[in-house]
Parts: sequence; structure tokens; C-alpha cells
Amino acid sequence: MDEIRVAGFRFAGEIVGIKKGSKQERPDVGVILAERPAVAAGVFTRNRLRAAPVDLSERRLRRGLCQGVVVNAGNANACTGRQGESDAKEMAALLALGVEPALDPKLVCVASTGVIGEPLPMELLREGVPRAGRSANEAGFARFARAILTTDKGPKVALRQLELDGRTITLAGCAKGAGMIAPNMATTLAFVLTDAACDRDWLDQVVRTETDATLNGVTVDGDTSTNDSLFVRASGAAGGKAVKKDGKRGRAFAAALREVLGELAFLLVRDGEGATKVVEILIEGARSEREAQRAARRVAESPLVKTAIHGADPNWGRVMCALGNAGVELRVDKIELDIGEVPVVRGGVGVMDGEREIAAHEVMAQPRYRIRAHLHAGRASATMLTCDFTKEYIDINASYRS
Amino acid sequence: MDEIRVAGFRFAGEIVGIKKGSKQERPDVGVILAERPAVAAGVFTRNRLRAAPVDLSERRLRRGLCQGVVVNAGNANACTGRQGESDAKEMAALLALGVEPALDPKLVCVASTGVIGEPLPMELLREGVPRAGRSANEAGFARFARAILTTDKGPKVALRQLELDGRTITLAGCAKGAGMIAPNMATTLAFVLTDAACDRDWLDQVVRTETDATLNGVTVDGDTSTNDSLFVRASGAAGGKAVKKDGKRGRAFAAALREVLGELAFLLVRDGEGATKVVEILIEGARSEREAQRAARRVAESPLVKTAIHGADPNWGRVMCALGNAGVELRVDKIELDIGEVPVVRGGVGVMDGEREIAAHEVMAQPRYRIRAHLHAGRASATMLTCDFTKEYIDINASYRS
Repeated sequence: MDEIRVAGFRFAGEIVGIKKGSKQERPDVGVILAERPAVAAGVFTRNRLRAAPVDLSERRLRRGLCQGVVVNAGNANACTGRQGESDAKEMAALLALGVEPALDPKLVCVASTGVIGEPLPMELLREGVPRAGRSANEAGFARFARAILTTDKGPKVALRQLELDGRTITLAGCAKGAGMIAPNMATTLAFVLTDAACDRDWLDQVVRTETDATLNGVTVDGDTSTNDSLFVRASGAAGGKAVKKDGKRGRAFAAALREVLGELAFLLVRDGEGATKVVEILIEGARSEREAQRAARRVAESPLVKTAIHGADPNWGRVMCALGNAGVELRVDKIELDIGEVPVVRGGVGVMDGEREIAAHEVMAQPRYRIRAHLHAGRASATMLTCDFTKEYIDINASYRS
Repeated sequence: MDEIRVAGFRFAGEIVGIKKGSKQERPDVGVILAERPAVAAGVFTRNRLRAAPVDLSERRLRRGLCQGVVVNAGNANACTGRQGESDAKEMAALLALGVEPALDPKLVCVASTGVIGEPLPMELLREGVPRAGRSANEAGFARFARAILTTDKGPKVALRQLELDGRTITLAGCAKGAGMIAPNMATTLAFVLTDAACDRDWLDQVVRTETDATLNGVTVDGDTSTNDSLFVRASGAAGGKAVKKDGKRGRAFAAALREVLGELAFLLVRDGEGATKVVEILIEGARSEREAQRAARRVAESPLVKTAIHGADPNWGRVMCALGNAGVELRVDKIELDIGEVPVVRGGVGVMDGEREIAAHEVMAQPRYRIRAHLHAGRASATMLTCDFTKEYIDINASYRS
């Protein structure tokens, strides 16, 4: 990971002291600088209570250009009112004016993550953000990836390379998040950098499409945070013509972006607070894609399903119960349910016997597997990644701030 | 509790062997017989996958009359297909024809609770149900209340008496349920008996109204079960004219019914699997009652809120985050939030200081308290009772069937 470089970008992660009570000091301010304004697109939380940096960054990304991003962990700057708005703006200005040569502050975006409702410690940031800006370098990706973490067990990084017109293009992404994770967005914070040259409008569109297929299809605990933000930035430093839609090049780039976002999404669930298993909930035969998603989410977020997953208990009645609660069309006497490849329901009725019970338990003892339901109400399908509910989740969240 | 009697009804609770693996033998088949067909009303689960006994009982209650109810715990008879339908009918017939004099089987309702997806052990029931019918007596209420339990810590019973026209009227209720509890219905199974004389149509209406105000306002884990059923039966044995709407007598009866259902609802949450606290989520200032309910439910079911409740951690940002996810109209810059009587958010901004932090923590250390949010979007309000999320919940549910 220390070797990840993306031409045209410099990175930093500095210890500024915002993460409280950690036994060893951890980096908590991250910076990504582009040599020149990079083509950029973002996706932001649909929570009605959006943190101040989310509003600011979304506004600034409307032009489709971004030169700097500054991130802090340990404080979400959410529910902080006008003070929060002015603090977010100041944070951007601290980066813009703290580097040589200075940047246009309007080309700097901000992201924050951590406890909701406390004012940002601006004294610390006034010293720390310019320091982070000055220390940014081409080999700093790993430090940045660590600086954005909160309850995460470790950094979440994904890397893909592809050939476009004989040039090697790099896409590198990192994300943070382990709790308060749900569609939409499911990330808390994610950053993807590429040296490809991209058309602005096309990048915006492809980022939204690929986010729906990846980060919007994972859940840990069903709560979309106030701060979720994805930033995708393209420096163009690899040279060549800008990637646009409809071509072979566009499809290749989009596929690589989907892989990077998909891997980050998987890493988010695998590191879900207290999680020991990642399970894909696949719904088929729904009346519409929206209903398929709703059913998948209902199953994926059911505490009863998530505890059964934890106990590797093929108690499929809980999955059926969740499907019945999803508010979607289904044919009760047609439903099929499989755990892995083991059929457990056919025609709405349990077909479990001793042998299948053992086989289903063996599937559920694995760290990653699939639960598939066919509703026989239509032709739409959807998947959602979820994890198990464990005592460690309770431990982490019953004492988060203390 | 052993002295609860309701004129006109006899009760039984027998050990039949359906609850598997229990160390000491527990009653698992319950019966309530009325001297003559009683006026009756019911409310049933809105889960799309309804257990066979639910469909059967709802159909039989359409006439507004019921003479016998037979209940088993340990097996839900859900997702059991045509076999389940015929088993439910046979269970009713076993009671109807097993007592002297025999009852019309169509006046017998059935309820089942327990594991989903396994066929009922009919050999056991063929012996046990007639035995329970024969053993029913006027002092058997307590045994019945125990026979319907599954993961409950103990029986849930509520009793009210009131004077109508100089006669003392009794309402006695019992319920089971600790997990898979959510609106609507939130009960799994509940039974209320009264010796009042009631008009059929009026009873049906008042039962629905009072259920909305009570059992539909509690949640443990957000999953409405496949078997939820409430039965209210009025024997009329106390004599007097039938209670009807609009009168002082109707209001008095409805108030007593609400108290009984409200107490059962409280007992359900207090005994929520692993729960150590009961918290009332009060939403005010919503645009509509529906939005108030949606917001209350979103907060009440958030794992992050429920773990903060467990840790007595006044991490109010999680409540705000859940409100922002509720999909309801709210004025971000106006929201108020209180923990008990302690103001923590005003005008959408945290107003916590050291003193309030301590005060809010003290509120949250209590076994029962209220969290209030005002959305400033309208005049509607709603409340929901919830409990904390604990390691014991994980323990209970990760190994339910083993």
C-alpha cells in the first residue's frame, strides 16, 4: 500500500489531536492535493440532517473541479449550526492558504467524520491543516488512508490499473467506515483518485451509476450518516484524450471504477463493527428493482437475521418473516429460498431435512456466502451486502464516546 | 395472579412437550373456553407471510363470536403450506370435540408461536389438546398465561376493574413476546377477557382503536412476526346491557381496555430480549401523525440509538441522525431534542455542556425515561416504546434453536 501513487496527486496524514482518548496517537487530518484543478465528482448523504462540510463540498463540486480536499476524523461537524458552516469554510481556507503556492479556497472541499454535535477544535486545526498541506507528497497515500479512520480496524484501500490507448491508467481508492453504514450513501467517506483524463459531465454520471451498484448496496446497521461523501477526482496526468461515454474506453474506465468502489464496499461490510461474516442478500423475481432493493434491505437489516447469521443458525423462518415485512409484492405459495446452494424453501414451504440442515449450517460457518430469495412476482433483482450482529457491536457502540 | 377470574371463562395450560430442549418441563398448550359463544374481536399481523392459524382465526372471527381458543407455544405453524392449514383446523377440532359438551369447531380459534417452518407435532397435540380442554377451570388463568410463553422471562398479565351501572366489570389480559416485536401488531400473541356485555361491531372498532394506541406503538427489534394475534372476548356474564359507542359507559370501557393493552405493551418492551431499559420516544411537531410515527419508529429501531441507550451514553447525535433518515419533513434549524427534562438540542444545534452531560447521563441511567424531539414541521405527534440493544439479545438470538 505504501507504494500507491497516482500521478498528479500528493497526500498527507498528520497527527493533530482531534481523535480523543486514543491510547496511541493516530493521524486524524488528511489532505489530498492535485497539481492543478482536477476534474471531480461527488456523491453525498441523503440524510436530511447534513453536516456542514457536506453542504459546502457539494456546492463547490458543482463546477466539476477540485484541487484540494481536507479531511478530519474524530469530529463530524454535524448539528453545529452556523458555527459549523463557518468552521468548514475556514478549514478549507486553512489548506488553500497554507500551501505554496496558495490555492483558490473555492477549489478546496472538506469532509469530517466522528462524533456528531460538538464544535470543531479550530485551534488544533489552525495549526494542523497547514502542516498537513505542507507535508503532502506523492508517497503519502497510506498515511492519508489511515488519517480518515474512526472505529475502523484498519485502512480500506482498493487499486486497479487499466490500459487506455496504450497508456497505463491507475485508479486508487480508500474509504472509512464501520458503523452508521447504510444506503444511501453507505460509505461515510470515500476517495477515489485517477490519473486518467475525464470529461466532467461524464464523470459525474458514471460516478452516480457505479455508486448505486456498489456503495449503495451495503449495510451494517441501517443508519445513513450525516456526513457520507464520496469524492472522485481525475488529474489527467496520464495524458491522452478525456474519457467520455459510449466508447470502449468509457466502458473500460467505468468497469475499473466499479471494481474499486465494489471492493471498498466489501471492505466496509467486512469491517462492519463487530462483524465476523459478510453475506450477500440476493433478491430475484421482484416486481421492480425498487421492490427488490427494499426486500434485500429489509432482510439485510433485520436484527433477527443478523444474529442468526452470527450463530450460523439456518433459521430461515427469520428471512421469510423479514420478506413478509418488506412491503413488497410476493407470491407466498411460490417463494424460493436458498442458503448458499442449499434449497431451504420451495413453493413457500420449508424443505429442510437433517442433511440440508447440516449443509446449510456448513455454508453459514463460512466467512462469506449468499442467501438468495426468489419472490416470483416479476423479473427484477437486487443484491445487498450485510454482516452479522455480534456482542462486539454492542461493546463498540454502547461506549463509543467514553 | 392465581386469583384472576373472569366470569364466563375457564382456562387451562398443559405440558404437551412441544417446547423442545427445555430443561424443566413447561406448559405449552393453553385453552380458553367460554360458557357460551362470546362476542369477540381480533387484530392480526400485517406481515405478508401469515401463519396458518392467523388466517383461520381471522376468518372465524368475522362472525364476531368465539367460544374456544387453543394456543400452542414452541412451533409457529408458519411457512408450512397446505399441511399447516389442515393442522390448524385439526387443532381447533381437537378442542371442539374434546370437551363435554362438544363445541361447534367454527367457534374455535387457534394461535401458534415458536419456530417458523416446521410442521406441528400433531401426535402430541392429538393427546394434549383434548386433555387441556378437559382440565380448563375458572382459576386457570395463571397457567394459561404461562403456557403461551417462548423466550419471555415470565408471564405478562394486566388486570383492570371498573363499575358499569353498579356492576363490577373485569378486564384481564395476558400476552407473550420478547423478540420479533414491532408494529403492526407488536404482540405476537395477546388475549383479553372481560365479563362485560359488548356490542359486536362496537367491540371490533374499539379494539382496533385501542390497539393502535398501545400494542402498535412498541418495538423490540423491528420485525413484525408471522403470527401476531390479539383476541378480545366479552362473555357478558356480568350481566347488564351491552356496551356500545358514544356513551359514558363506552368511554369507560374503552379507557380500561386501553390501560390493559397499554400495560401489556409496556411489559412486552420491558421483557424485550436482553432489554434492561424502557424508553419512550416522543415525536412532536410532525407534519402528520403518519410522519410522527415514522420518525418515532426510525429512532426507536436504530441500533446505534439502542446501544447508546444501553450504555447510558447521551450521544444525541445518533438520535438526530436517525431523524434525518426517517424520510419526514423537519426544520433542520428548529429541531429540539430533550433527554428526560434535559435540553440537548435547540434550533438544530447541540446545547450540551458539562452539567447537562452529567444530567442527561443520570436520566439515561434510569430504567425508564423519555426522549423527546420536536420537528417544527407541523402539529402531529406520536410515541413509541423501545428498549436497549444488549449482548444478551445477541446471545438469545444467535442460538435460539440450538
